[in-house]
Amino acid sequence: MAEGWRVPRFGDLERTALPAGAPVGPGAVRLRMRAWSLNYRDLLLLRGAYDPRLPLPYVPLSDGVGEVIEAGAASGFRPGERAVATFAPGWIDGAPDADVVRTARGARTPGLAAAEVVLDARELVRVPDGLSDAEAATLPCAGVTAWTALFRHGGVRPGSGVVVMGTGGVSLFALQLARAAGARVLATTTSPGKAELLRELGAAEVLDAAPGWGKAARAFGVDLVVDVGGAGTIRESVEACRVGGTIALVGNLAAGPGLDPVPAFMKQLRLQGVFTGARRDLEDLIRGLGAIRPVIGATVPFDALPEAFAALEARAHGGRPLVGKVAVAA
Amino acid sequence: MAEGWRVPRFGDLERTALPAGAPVGPGAVRLRMRAWSLNYRDLLLLRGAYDPRLPLPYVPLSDGVGEVIEAGAASGFRPGERAVATFAPGWIDGAPDADVVRTARGARTPGLAAAEVVLDARELVRVPDGLSDAEAATLPCAGVTAWTALFRHGGVRPGSGVVVMGTGGVSLFALQLARAAGARVLATTTSPGKAELLRELGAAEVLDAAPGWGKAARAFGVDLVVDVGGAGTIRESVEACRVGGTIALVGNLAAGPGLDPVPAFMKQLRLQGVFTGARRDLEDLIRGLGAIRPVIGATVPFDALPEAFAALEARAHGGRPLVGKVAVAA
Amino acid sequence: MAEGWRVPRFGDLERTALPAGAPVGPGAVRLRMRAWSLNYRDLLLLRGAYDPRLPLPYVPLSDGVGEVIEAGAASGFRPGERAVATFAPGWIDGAPDADVVRTARGARTPGLAAAEVVLDARELVRVPDGLSDAEAATLPCAGVTAWTALFRHGGVRPGSGVVVMGTGGVSLFALQLARAAGARVLATTTSPGKAELLRELGAAEVLDAAPGWGKAARAFGVDLVVDVGGAGTIRESVEACRVGGTIALVGNLAAGPGLDPVPAFMKQLRLQGVFTGARRDLEDLIRGLGAIRPVIGATVPFDALPEAFAALEARAHGGRPLVGKVAVAA
Amino acid sequence: MAEGWRVPRFGDLERTALPAGAPVGPGAVRLRMRAWSLNYRDLLLLRGAYDPRLPLPYVPLSDGVGEVIEAGAASGFRPGERAVATFAPGWIDGAPDADVVRTARGARTPGLAAAEVVLDARELVRVPDGLSDAEAATLPCAGVTAWTALFRHGGVRPGSGVVVMGTGGVSLFALQLARAAGARVLATTTSPGKAELLRELGAAEVLDAAPGWGKAARAFGVDLVVDVGGAGTIRESVEACRVGGTIALVGNLAAGPGLDPVPAFMKQLRLQGVFTGARRDLEDLIRGLGAIRPVIGATVPFDALPEAFAALEARAHGGRPLVGKVAVAA
Repeated sequence: MAEGWRVPRFGDLERTALPAGAPVGPGAVRLRMRAWSLNYRDLLLLRGAYDPRLPLPYVPLSDGVGEVIEAGAASGFRPGERAVATFAPGWIDGAPDADVVRTARGARTPGLAAAEVVLDARELVRVPDGLSDAEAATLPCAGVTAWTALFRHGGVRPGSGVVVMGTGGVSLFALQLARAAGARVLATTTSPGKAELLRELGAAEVLDAAPGWGKAARAFGVDLVVDVGGAGTIRESVEACRVGGTIALVGNLAAGPGLDPVPAFMKQLRLQGVFTGARRDLEDLIRGLGAIRPVIGATVPFDALPEAFAALEARAHGGRPLVGKVAVAA
Repeated sequence: MAEGWRVPRFGDLERTALPAGAPVGPGAVRLRMRAWSLNYRDLLLLRGAYDPRLPLPYVPLSDGVGEVIEAGAASGFRPGERAVATFAPGWIDGAPDADVVRTARGARTPGLAAAEVVLDARELVRVPDGLSDAEAATLPCAGVTAWTALFRHGGVRPGSGVVVMGTGGVSLFALQLARAAGARVLATTTSPGKAELLRELGAAEVLDAAPGWGKAARAFGVDLVVDVGGAGTIRESVEACRVGGTIALVGNLAAGPGLDPVPAFMKQLRLQGVFTGARRDLEDLIRGLGAIRPVIGATVPFDALPEAFAALEARAHGGRPLVGKVAVAA
Repeated sequence: MAEGWRVPRFGDLERTALPAGAPVGPGAVRLRMRAWSLNYRDLLLLRGAYDPRLPLPYVPLSDGVGEVIEAGAASGFRPGERAVATFAPGWIDGAPDADVVRTARGARTPGLAAAEVVLDARELVRVPDGLSDAEAATLPCAGVTAWTALFRHGGVRPGSGVVVMGTGGVSLFALQLARAAGARVLATTTSPGKAELLRELGAAEVLDAAPGWGKAARAFGVDLVVDVGGAGTIRESVEACRVGGTIALVGNLAAGPGLDPVPAFMKQLRLQGVFTGARRDLEDLIRGLGAIRPVIGATVPFDALPEAFAALEARAHGGRPLVGKVAVAA
Repeated sequence: MAEGWRVPRFGDLERTALPAGAPVGPGAVRLRMRAWSLNYRDLLLLRGAYDPRLPLPYVPLSDGVGEVIEAGAASGFRPGERAVATFAPGWIDGAPDADVVRTARGARTPGLAAAEVVLDARELVRVPDGLSDAEAATLPCAGVTAWTALFRHGGVRPGSGVVVMGTGGVSLFALQLARAAGARVLATTTSPGKAELLRELGAAEVLDAAPGWGKAARAFGVDLVVDVGGAGTIRESVEACRVGGTIALVGNLAAGPGLDPVPAFMKQLRLQGVFTGARRDLEDLIRGLGAIRPVIGATVPFDALPEAFAALEARAHGGRPLVGKVAVAA
């Protein structure tokens, strides 16, 4: 048995002993978990808002890093190596299939909130030395989503104009990665106090996220908007984009009938839903990180996991100046 | 002076003598017009609904075919050849630039409603023998829009599942071209009497366009929806599409905040605004037509041009069983 | 133990009893094999020409179809269903990784020349009712290669011009699939007697594959050449292609320094090596086959497997009028 | 009449008075030329090696920058602005058509070796303030070729591995642009003295361009080779590339049957001929230059144009340590 957490009913986190996992087959490894990272999806799942019919109890947390403590002969791993799990176990490369959302980790596929887990080697990517455990744990969902939006769908390259929103995990990754690719970045924020941080991370322009920012952003030359605001921001994003530009729809903060298709048609925009990415994207992201250090806004011990969810919840309500990711340390 | 039509004030068509056009430079040709085709955009322009600040009077009609009666030395054309004009004069190939919508023909760029016009050869594509004048005149807007949606953006190939809506020009082209590419087509219609025609043109399945059709279409396996209904249909289109599918936003029937971005995100859809295409797309369409004959629902003499607009208007109000394009003959 | 064949030394096929395979895990199935198909690669492997350091003995045959006789609980298959194996076990979708060639079946990954095999469900695709066992067995290598060349790399659509060479498996698939996609096909052949067959399958033009055919093919308008001849044909293929066209390099008949890079540069060609494709391509091919029936030139009983290799060898030497694939029946 | 140069017979440059050009139509501008840049193609043309049937005399030089001294009303330019000419006048965006090579400037389309020229505004792109005249003059051929190879065809993004060869114009642009995009660069050189410069420009690794460098480069992880050596380097490039990688074939130094198609097939490489690019690529390059300053190895006055050709010739023969572009100043 391994120590861990589970969700016996929506809204509740319970410390528990979890089964130790399957024996380690030739293509599998056993990991001793060292760090995790929380996503807004984890919070929605916990509340029962993301998948109300999710069978309970479930084991939470999609993103985590561990040390290999037992390695199958055909796994390609050796004990002592660190590995990070992919977000959607069966998504190796290419386009998503119908199961990606349903089988993403930390829900119908058990999460990583356990001291030890056994995973197929195909669901793991090696962590390079330059990254801390917690930094690596932020990559599978937030980092890959930003990577996919910019490079699979956005075609970002030197001189591209990219809009990012606020200081959440995906947005800060998008800002950092866009800068690494030679793009120009305009950031929006509702808290003027964060403008400085956004400029330090490389934003050439920071706009107050007040109504009308989309029109104000036009002069910047916007090829891609990484829209994390859903119905609350999509109209401004359409305003901001150049003719023929792209809006990546990521995250799921605000639902509702926000988008009028006619302006999107007239501007010949591409709107692309981005739900993380494949293992290949995680590998490419890790290779492309270079000098980028993921921004971690808070780190909470594994024993205090509910506090990590509380920190995320506070941000969702604008109550705390959290920037970047919430990490959890073993 | 050449006989023609102009719009002195919104809603009004006036027979007039138009200037004979510039002298024919080395890269230009003079066309004697032989046929035209109307688009819904022509009707919206006439009403003043498309571009309320359009300077008046303007010369209407974006789509037309003529016979070369005078050819500049470097034009590449010879007298007697037939040519069809591109929809957006400066759009040669590749992505649209900011001017495409503003400079499309039949508005701020003068239309073709004249007995004779002088055009740059770069704005013309030769018409092959197999097409009638009126058939060729349906290609620049409706035909190219369908082509671009299917092949530039939709990646349609044998076995793809495509949804088309109703019996307008773009939809019937999309149906015919998708079939020519080996795709399977599901058509929706509000008038059961047209189901037969849609099946004759190759639709494997025809659904009544009643609320809920999107969900009913899912089992078909939908890779691409050619959505011509705007806010009125976009929710059903999102329902219909497979995970990772594409919705081409074409035409501009119904504005309004119809699209909730969250389901589009969760299904990882791509929504792509398609405003016709480049000269290259018109050339490719003509090459790819094969045995396809554009469907012409009504033909009106040039002298009776207002009747052509009336026919289009009637369809928009569901008053007549018009299918396919409204053509005009010299 | 299951009856089968192995290669104890290059050039030799030996009837043998093979291990019955691993127990059927939750994600695996046991197949009773019903048909196989031979590729030129199988012959090169047998001769020791393809991979001279291949550890012996090895189990031959990459392509095969079987009936599920035992299905793991998580396999998604049920007993009685037919399944065809993918060519490269780990290639699910997207770009190939470094291991694709090394791990392709029938070499370092054991082949399917056995009465029964146990395979992971991720390496299998369901066979639809319309295909015979032998027909389905021709798909994983020859069919997928043609599909990938045409649709992943060639962008074939209605009106495209495609050149295919001769009457081998890949070429006939390319001819049939290109026609299904509305493309025009020019076929070359060294045996005039086969011109009729090529026309029946839909070739609009057939050229004698004599020196100079490339130049003669230019007027056809060639967007894509599916080149199966290697150094022996590449110069003609470069001649044939339009500016900006594509040459798919498939198969490996003739090595040698055949290609001058300068004309390829001046014509801005794309030359793309195509080594089959991913599981996704096999799924897409099966969905896109429509009314296409794979062409099988000879069928040999499993007990007489060496005769199948002999048939293939005879074709390579021009000795027999074999067209299409060599199949093997259980 | 305007002072200029022409080539009365291959190998000879003659100072001459050129016609002052057409009157400036509404869409055209008159430029007073301020700087030019030479390409290896200019040298091959002069020798008669590039296009032996080129009608004589011709006006040389494809690449140049001028100041607008007269601007047509619809040109979009104003007097005093600087503009750089596109390499192939009719290539606006998208794929090349058959005429691109034949109509490239400085050959069958008159070159820019004149004090004044009249050009259509569609053939011109505005020069931003940060670039000198000579720097801007290096962009249309060498700069655009590197841009197109990296971003249209190579998909370069952070972490990509790129190989460049030597210190010519295209290679140095490719090195600088790849670095700006966050890629890793390995450079080869035949002169060890230039390794330092290549490292200063950002090369992570420099290899002696001796036989076998391709194999030595493998460990670097090569996604893209920008091959400027033709038959002389293509075998090493194939060795260097990862499975599924890309080789951009640019320039035309060495013809001959250098490429064996079989290894390219087995490694599933893409070889892409790159002959500069469209006006859109020049615009994108200028937008993407950021802090990059083009490397100019020598500047020669317009009155001494033959010396500029001599400098280029010397490099081709390895006689001088020229790096980067040869510029010409008015």
